[in-house]
Amino acid sequence: MANFAKTSIDFSKARTELHDTLKLTGAEISYNTLPAGVEIPFVHSHKENEEIYLFIEGDGKFYADGEIVEIKKGDALRVDPACARCIKAGTLGLSYFCVQVKSGSLEHFTMSDGVISETKAQF
Amino acid sequence: MANFAKTSIDFSKARTELHDTLKLTGAEISYNTLPAGVEIPFVHSHKENEEIYLFIEGDGKFYADGEIVEIKKGDALRVDPACARCIKAGTLGLSYFCVQVKSGSLEHFTMSDGVISETKAQF
Repeated sequence: MANFAKTSIDFSKARTELHDTLKLTGAEISYNTLPAGVEIPFVHSHKENEEIYLFIEGDGKFYADGEIVEIKKGDALRVDPACARCIKAGTLGLSYFCVQVKSGSLEHFTMSDGVISETKAQF
Repeated sequence: MANFAKTSIDFSKARTELHDTLKLTGAEISYNTLPAGVEIPFVHSHKENEEIYLFIEGDGKFYADGEIVEIKKGDALRVDPACARCIKAGTLGLSYFCVQVKSGSLEHFTMSDGVISETKAQF
C-alpha cells in the first residue's frame, strides 16, 4: 500500500470532497466554486472542527457571527468551531478550499515534525 | 476576541505560512510557488503529520518513496507521515498549498460535526 494517494479536482465542478477519495485521516478538505451572487443558504457552526478557508479565485462576502467580511482571491480565513458562518459569492464568483481540522489537534509542524532524509530525489 | 481571523496571501511570493498569522490550532498551511524547473532541494518525511498538497497552478513532479508522480493544476495528494517526499516545478512553474495535520486526528466532519443555525445571514 503506497504511502500516498492522488486525485484530480475539476475546478469547474461546484464541489469536490477529498476525505474519502484520498483517505484523509487528519482533515476533510473540499473545493467549492460558486457562481456570481450565489449564497450557501444556511448559517452553520461546528462542534469541534476549526475551518480554514483558502480563496483562490473571485470575490465575495463571509458572514461570521453577524459580521460581514469582504473576501477576494488570495484571502485566507480561520474560523473557530463556535463561529456562526455563511458565504456568498460576489460579482466575480468565488472559488475556495475549505479545510476542516479538529481544533487544538496540531502538536508539532515543519521544523519540529519534519525529518530531513539523506536521499537525493532523482527527477 | 473574534471567533475568526483573516489574512491575505500574495500569490507572487515564494512562500507564505498561515499557522502563526491566523493562530491555527489544528493545521499548518503554507502557500508555495516555484519558478519553472526549480526543485525543493531536500527529501523529507514527518514524525506524525499527514500532508495534503493542493496544486492550484502549473505543473511539476512529486517524488514519493522513490516514485515520480506527475502533477498539474487541480491535482491533490495525500502523503502519509513516513513517506519520503520532494517536489519539482515543471515548465509552467508550480503553485500549491501544503496542509499539515496530525495523522488520525479528525474524528467527525461536515454532517456529523456541523450544526445548522436558525439564523439567516443578511449580506
